[in-house]
Amino acid sequence: MKTIPLILMGCGGVGSHLLQHIVSCRSLHSLQGLLLRVVGVGDSKSLMVVDDLLNKGLDDNFLLELCRLKHAGESISKLADSGHCHVFAHPESQGKIVEIASQLGKKSGLAFVDCTASSGTVSVLKQVVDMGCCVVMANKKPLTSTMEDYENLMKYPRRIRHESTVGAGLPVIASLNRIISSGDPVHRIVGSLSGTLGYVMSEVEDGKPLSQVVRAAKSLGYTEPDPRDDLGGMDVARKALILARILGRRINMDSIQVESLYPKEMGPDVMTVDDFLGRGLLLLDNDIQERVEKAASNGNVLRYVCVIEGPRCKVGVQELPKNSALGRLRGSDNVLEVYTRCYSDQPLVIQGAGAGNDTTAAGVLADIVDIQDLFP
Amino acid sequence: MKTIPLILMGCGGVGSHLLQHIVSCRSLHSLQGLLLRVVGVGDSKSLMVVDDLLNKGLDDNFLLELCRLKHAGESISKLADSGHCHVFAHPESQGKIVEIASQLGKKSGLAFVDCTASSGTVSVLKQVVDMGCCVVMANKKPLTSTMEDYENLMKYPRRIRHESTVGAGLPVIASLNRIISSGDPVHRIVGSLSGTLGYVMSEVEDGKPLSQVVRAAKSLGYTEPDPRDDLGGMDVARKALILARILGRRINMDSIQVESLYPKEMGPDVMTVDDFLGRGLLLLDNDIQERVEKAASNGNVLRYVCVIEGPRCKVGVQELPKNSALGRLRGSDNVLEVYTRCYSDQPLVIQGAGAGNDTTAAGVLADIVDIQDLFP
Repeated sequence: MKTIPLILMGCGGVGSHLLQHIVSCRSLHSLQGLLLRVVGVGDSKSLMVVDDLLNKGLDDNFLLELCRLKHAGESISKLADSGHCHVFAHPESQGKIVEIASQLGKKSGLAFVDCTASSGTVSVLKQVVDMGCCVVMANKKPLTSTMEDYENLMKYPRRIRHESTVGAGLPVIASLNRIISSGDPVHRIVGSLSGTLGYVMSEVEDGKPLSQVVRAAKSLGYTEPDPRDDLGGMDVARKALILARILGRRINMDSIQVESLYPKEMGPDVMTVDDFLGRGLLLLDNDIQERVEKAASNGNVLRYVCVIEGPRCKVGVQELPKNSALGRLRGSDNVLEVYTRCYSDQPLVIQGAGAGNDTTAAGVLADIVDIQDLFP
Repeated sequence: MKTIPLILMGCGGVGSHLLQHIVSCRSLHSLQGLLLRVVGVGDSKSLMVVDDLLNKGLDDNFLLELCRLKHAGESISKLADSGHCHVFAHPESQGKIVEIASQLGKKSGLAFVDCTASSGTVSVLKQVVDMGCCVVMANKKPLTSTMEDYENLMKYPRRIRHESTVGAGLPVIASLNRIISSGDPVHRIVGSLSGTLGYVMSEVEDGKPLSQVVRAAKSLGYTEPDPRDDLGGMDVARKALILARILGRRINMDSIQVESLYPKEMGPDVMTVDDFLGRGLLLLDNDIQERVEKAASNGNVLRYVCVIEGPRCKVGVQELPKNSALGRLRGSDNVLEVYTRCYSDQPLVIQGAGAGNDTTAAGVLADIVDIQDLFP
């Protein structure tokens, strides 16, 4: 039986789904000769580590109990007296992780799984990689920091996986890496990588006012609590940066041209969320409606996309042919079109749900299973 | 530098493109710390093996010269006196491959790459796998033989890759394996996996007679020399069987319901190719036209697809919604729709060119690079 010892940081949301997937896949993985041994789990307050680090994992009932706690909005430290683990509070826990990595790294190997949304994990990630461990990330932040951080982290690319940072569980990065390693040059990537903006653009295409569409999206739970976090395009820009860096572009966030769907005068430091949803959005309706109509008169539609081509990487509204994979997109699916030598006239297209804790966690789990050959 | 020693069987067509890709990717792979050392190359007549098996590879100029020979329709044995290799004729060569596998298998590892279209490689493939070697296949035959052969071959699934057996280089199998290993249950697969039949069905949808479309496809080089090899659906059935077996279905070719686009009375043992193209096809025009019109009256289109759902696996013409990825398909692209728990309302869609030596070879090369962690 091949064993992957793992530590999970960030056990709410995606992390909680991951733990449930790990438990429910026990017999499937066992048939494949694989055992995922969860030796540590952390949230924003504390880290719990199994007492017998070399031989045991936190047991499945404990993991499921922990998921129930997180779901109820509680801290995992409530489970401190369960008997078979040690609890470390932050910031002490970061040192503990590095200590575990140095203990297990070369011997049994260790997968450090980052399901947080924090930029504070970069330093631990680099240290555990240097100690011979593997890293699997759903967290975009460590990959969108400085180029220096990125290159330090990616020094051993086979040991770093992060499929779920772009398009959730969609096989976007795995597919792109296959194309790159086969020497097929990528000429152009165009992607709709925000379910929220995908939904918004296809609704305004049907003639609905932007203000109405955004309010509906918010009440459907499609947007962040402050919809400007979606409309500003920074989340798409982070995904674009990750893809561009995979293609070998040595660029930072500030090299990406980002078009915001709202002007600075309606930013969070000027207007409250309620004001923006109330009167702010109304002021944007006409402009977007005119652009939709202009595009339609050219037989095109508007999509909020990232475009990576040559040294250029930009994120914003584009007029695209109605009759392309992106043009036909409806609702909240993500789509990526990749143009290469092999896919020149018609692109390689990958499409499907690109958000959601379940899907994102599935992508993380597939990454963990995929690094098994690096373990003894 | 990580080294993958490899033997390639079948060095015309796909194999020839693979050798060219390997040579042109030298510096790219070197940057990634990877060296592909081609220790042997075989065609249907002979096998050439580098003299210093443990340390050297056939040199790049030799490999390119060999590609030129194959392109000109010649046998590689013409290069026998090049100095740094030994030549073995069939059937002696099979024993030689097994000997090399036993020499290199446990020590440096060996990737055995099958780019033939032969069912005769099954026995060698099984032997080299048992000796600890890896296998990469573009050849569908060994995977569509008996269930016993299949299970013997797939005993060590991590060491067997065959992306290019379905949809050429499209990341179909890699994506499916990711879904499976994340425990996301696959409910349904619908795919258009023949560029030829994709082209034919979208042309008859436009009202063109089947006879005219098939003749055009043949003159464009889209079909096999005898177009019945495409129209009979067996090639699609083989791909469907490969996908079904990946999903864990223990079935054989004869469990697949295959609809042929021509009746038995027009089979190759009754009618010549010319007769079929001349008068045979004309007799089929009305029926397909009626079916196209009936589908259109339901708002649907006809597609020649494989459907895998529950224990059922069938291949043939289906009425599908015009407004689905498959319904919108035009030309010769392949499309796969995968419905799972995570992709339930809208499927995961993978689409792009699914044929051609260049693309197929790129898929094989990506597989080779992807098994690198299994090498010392």
